[in-house]
Amino acid sequence: NPQGSRVTPVFATQLPGLNTLGISMVRIDYAPWGLNPPHTHPRATEILTVLEGSLQVGFVTSNPENRFITKVLQKGDVFVFPVGLVHFQRNIGNGYAVVIAALSSQNPGAITMANSVFGANPPIPSDILAKAFQVDMSVVDQLQAKF
Amino acid sequence: NPQGSRVTPVFATQLPGLNTLGISMVRIDYAPWGLNPPHTHPRATEILTVLEGSLQVGFVTSNPENRFITKVLQKGDVFVFPVGLVHFQRNIGNGYAVVIAALSSQNPGAITMANSVFGANPPIPSDILAKAFQVDMSVVDQLQAKF
Amino acid sequence: NPQGSRVTPVFATQLPGLNTLGISMVRIDYAPWGLNPPHTHPRATEILTVLEGSLQVGFVTSNPENRFITKVLQKGDVFVFPVGLVHFQRNIGNGYAVVIAALSSQNPGAITMANSVFGANPPIPSDILAKAFQVDMSVVDQLQAKF
Amino acid sequence: NPQGSRVTPVFATQLPGLNTLGISMVRIDYAPWGLNPPHTHPRATEILTVLEGSLQVGFVTSNPENRFITKVLQKGDVFVFPVGLVHFQRNIGNGYAVVIAALSSQNPGAITMANSVFGANPPIPSDILAKAFQVDMSVVDQLQAKF
Amino acid sequence: NPQGSRVTPVFATQLPGLNTLGISMVRIDYAPWGLNPPHTHPRATEILTVLEGSLQVGFVTSNPENRFITKVLQKGDVFVFPVGLVHFQRNIGNGYAVVIAALSSQNPGAITMANSVFGANPPIPSDILAKAFQVDMSVVDQLQAKF
Amino acid sequence: NPQGSRVTPVFATQLPGLNTLGISMVRIDYAPWGLNPPHTHPRATEILTVLEGSLQVGFVTSNPENRFITKVLQKGDVFVFPVGLVHFQRNIGNGYAVVIAALSSQNPGAITMANSVFGANPPIPSDILAKAFQVDMSVVDQLQAKF
Repeated sequence: NPQGSRVTPVFATQLPGLNTLGISMVRIDYAPWGLNPPHTHPRATEILTVLEGSLQVGFVTSNPENRFITKVLQKGDVFVFPVGLVHFQRNIGNGYAVVIAALSSQNPGAITMANSVFGANPPIPSDILAKAFQVDMSVVDQLQAKF
Repeated sequence: NPQGSRVTPVFATQLPGLNTLGISMVRIDYAPWGLNPPHTHPRATEILTVLEGSLQVGFVTSNPENRFITKVLQKGDVFVFPVGLVHFQRNIGNGYAVVIAALSSQNPGAITMANSVFGANPPIPSDILAKAFQVDMSVVDQLQAKF
Repeated sequence: NPQGSRVTPVFATQLPGLNTLGISMVRIDYAPWGLNPPHTHPRATEILTVLEGSLQVGFVTSNPENRFITKVLQKGDVFVFPVGLVHFQRNIGNGYAVVIAALSSQNPGAITMANSVFGANPPIPSDILAKAFQVDMSVVDQLQAKF
Repeated sequence: NPQGSRVTPVFATQLPGLNTLGISMVRIDYAPWGLNPPHTHPRATEILTVLEGSLQVGFVTSNPENRFITKVLQKGDVFVFPVGLVHFQRNIGNGYAVVIAALSSQNPGAITMANSVFGANPPIPSDILAKAFQVDMSVVDQLQAKF
Repeated sequence: NPQGSRVTPVFATQLPGLNTLGISMVRIDYAPWGLNPPHTHPRATEILTVLEGSLQVGFVTSNPENRFITKVLQKGDVFVFPVGLVHFQRNIGNGYAVVIAALSSQNPGAITMANSVFGANPPIPSDILAKAFQVDMSVVDQLQAKF
Repeated sequence: NPQGSRVTPVFATQLPGLNTLGISMVRIDYAPWGLNPPHTHPRATEILTVLEGSLQVGFVTSNPENRFITKVLQKGDVFVFPVGLVHFQRNIGNGYAVVIAALSSQNPGAITMANSVFGANPPIPSDILAKAFQVDMSVVDQLQAKF
């Protein structure tokens, strides 16, 4: 994707035998400084282990704290993103990085913040987004143009 | 809140007797043209009925479609937001609007998109957000300044 | 109904989109002194908020205590009936009363005590009910005649 | 009990090792023509097998049908009562009868219709019950006097 | 079976009405000194009551303890085998023994250790089993020949 | 272990933050021709991806079929072992092999067939095992001596 990461899922869509079994897996590859941008999984917790490279990972807790929890992971480290929370990973090295992650559903879903909010189809009305993000509609238009 | 809506929750925090019972309720009041901005509930589906006024409601499906489903509700109408999806309500009248909503958890959580992404504390690094939303860091700084 | 209340359900039968989502909603209207008679929901906890009027609500705990928990609710009050327990609401005012309730299942079911016990079709044998309620069969016949 | 049956439960209260394991068991003994009166289990389905004697068993489906399903069971027969539905068993022989039943919760609860409705403590107000069962308050008083 | 026990299941396969109800039942008959050999239920906890005879029952906890918990049960005693653990029952009397057991799933499954490991079809390669059980392949061949 | 594999778990015992989140992860390293011997997880399905090497994997279905499903996996392949079934992996190459596996519980448990059956502590009585596996007690003694 434009952010420099590629997600290869093994969900029930790809491996029908996973149906009813409540688990799935993904491999994520990151270009140097590549980003798996902020997203949530509506139906799954995610556990991740780093196979190659160094990654900064983080998630944000829910209202009202919105506390940002972040950590730098090296090869072999494991981290967990609780169900439904906004999280991301970024390669912080000049080489490629690779992780294997597992999700606690055979059909976890994924919602990328930027695409869901600014790239919906049809688009969410600009005036709603301008009010939600407290910016001018020109800024919203600029954001919507990218997705 | 600055968007012109007020959420009064009855979660297990407010009513401890809800513990283990798997349900909770909120009342939401909207000023004229007030907005309950895009947010998700990480652990609950939401069902909503309009008590007063007219509301535009909507939610966005998950990747890769990101389809925006929207509807105008009148007094007495009922709508449902599936677990974890980004959704909002906006008063589209010149009077006040009121809804009662119920959630399928005694502790549903709420994640406001703008606050989670641009208002985390400490903030998510600007360069990550600039890359995720594909805008200049100045736009990100502008967004982060509001939350 | 003959007791002076009307239940308007929004279950999966009425709104198929609720399927698998684990929540549903009802509106209940009460005539002055109207009663929503003792009943249970076999698959759901219920949470209720009063929109109009004053209601006496109550539920009975299970064997061996059979403790009766009751409260008078005013407009805006919230109350919860745990899954499977016998409960009721009664309008204790001279005007109409209205509540919105939500249930923790898209298909909660409802079992009205009087109808289930004395109004089953075909009827439960009178001698069984006479023994269960420790009354003469003439009393049972009188009860069964109403349902 | 006065109806001629005795329930010996093995729930988590009696056998703490059952905690979190989601199952429990009861033995029920019936005097000749003894009755285990109409009751529900708010948190469990029940499966039953007859060890001795002949039993009439039955349950009533939920609103609006309230259909009464009944069957005569002989030694060795198995029957199931779905979660939350009103059900009973009656010995239809002149000898003793015995069953073993299992429930799908370590803490299933039991609500005897007569005790919950007419034997609550403090009592449910008589006028509510008179309205619910559509009988004179004298009949309700007679019923409440027994429990 | 060759070990001197006979299992009569009432699962959803035998009684379709059990579907979705989360419970099932079995009767087990034991010849004198008969054995229900070590097995597991992949999807259910089991609760058992002795109807006739005396039984030695036991189960083994998981890694790393592998602790063997055993008890002699008399008529009327109740015991529980937690989900997925290896367990057995043996008649320790010269007469017949009978138990009724219930399982916390309508489709619990059963895996007999000897049959699963040494009697799979096609067989698990002998060299794998020789290594797993740390014996010569001749011992494995001897074991596989029986199942 | 003596079979030539090493399991490095990340369960709730190692990473308390996994509690209530319903997922965990393990890394398994295999010496050349090393074996992760037949075992079950009483509370979890397992999904596995090969990082290095070639592995033969297999599981056996439950009674009465006991069907052995097996496959050779290369680097990058993914496989799933349904909850509670007996399964194993064997390195079929002369180099090291490595997998990452995830389990659908934060506390999945593991039961190694050989250790549970022949290595329990105190041991399961030899005559029970001789009967279960239909071999002489000398063979059982030989098996028990190894664990």
